[in-house]
Amino acid sequence: MTEDEQAIRELVHAWTNANEVGDVATLLSLVTDDVVFMVPGCDPLGRELLEAAPPVTSSVQVEGINEIVELQVLRGWAFTRNQIDVTVTPASGEAVHLSGCILALFRQEADGRWRLARHANMLTTKKLEQGRLGGVV
Amino acid sequence: MTEDEQAIRELVHAWTNANEVGDVATLLSLVTDDVVFMVPGCDPLGRELLEAAPPVTSSVQVEGINEIVELQVLRGWAFTRNQIDVTVTPASGEAVHLSGCILALFRQEADGRWRLARHANMLTTKKLEQGRLGGVV
Repeated sequence: MTEDEQAIRELVHAWTNANEVGDVATLLSLVTDDVVFMVPGCDPLGRELLEAAPPVTSSVQVEGINEIVELQVLRGWAFTRNQIDVTVTPASGEAVHLSGCILALFRQEADGRWRLARHANMLTTKKLEQGRLGGVV
Repeated sequence: MTEDEQAIRELVHAWTNANEVGDVATLLSLVTDDVVFMVPGCDPLGRELLEAAPPVTSSVQVEGINEIVELQVLRGWAFTRNQIDVTVTPASGEAVHLSGCILALFRQEADGRWRLARHANMLTTKKLEQGRLGGVV
């Protein structure tokens, strides 16, 4: 694995961890100024998507698979494809099953660090029936 | 506009046209051997997605906006973002409204031609009420 590949894997890992605990400051440090977030059927959003995120006030448990199935480093850019199949369980509230894929583009910036630049989120949610949680992931 | 940018715009145009008339042979000529198609909540598919497409037996009318809002050429790769808001009306059957965005990656191959390599489709469909067609797009 090259140094760039390692750096991008660490970035994806840091992104996932910060996402799970709602650490907005860290998330903002991991994206480019011109980042674009895309989800099905909606207009694209930039950094304001993160800035508008509510603070996480209760613990969230995330179980399942979040796997980088492809990583290619281009010149100054890179992309990954992730396959995700997780169950998100808030401390209070219903568990949600998220599955699907993500196509993400990363750019290496002037300081040498890789940051998330374009993010196509194709996850869909499904509320889980009580008692079925164990078998899903 | 550079020669590469022009070539990619022509490819997107050819792709859209072939898609509208169900011209599978042309679609297959425009994608790489390892192309990956991604849509919300589903497993990614390769060329078999196109090969399995049913032949178009009736005319389809597509009206609306399909705009390249970003095009960046990297080294041997490029990406585009499209914003789409169209109404698809088959000769028989209900009109469907498709809206959302696409993030696509292209690769320049050994023959010098650009081909579609990764395609993240975030369009969502909505059946239209009768009589509302005129005002939608």
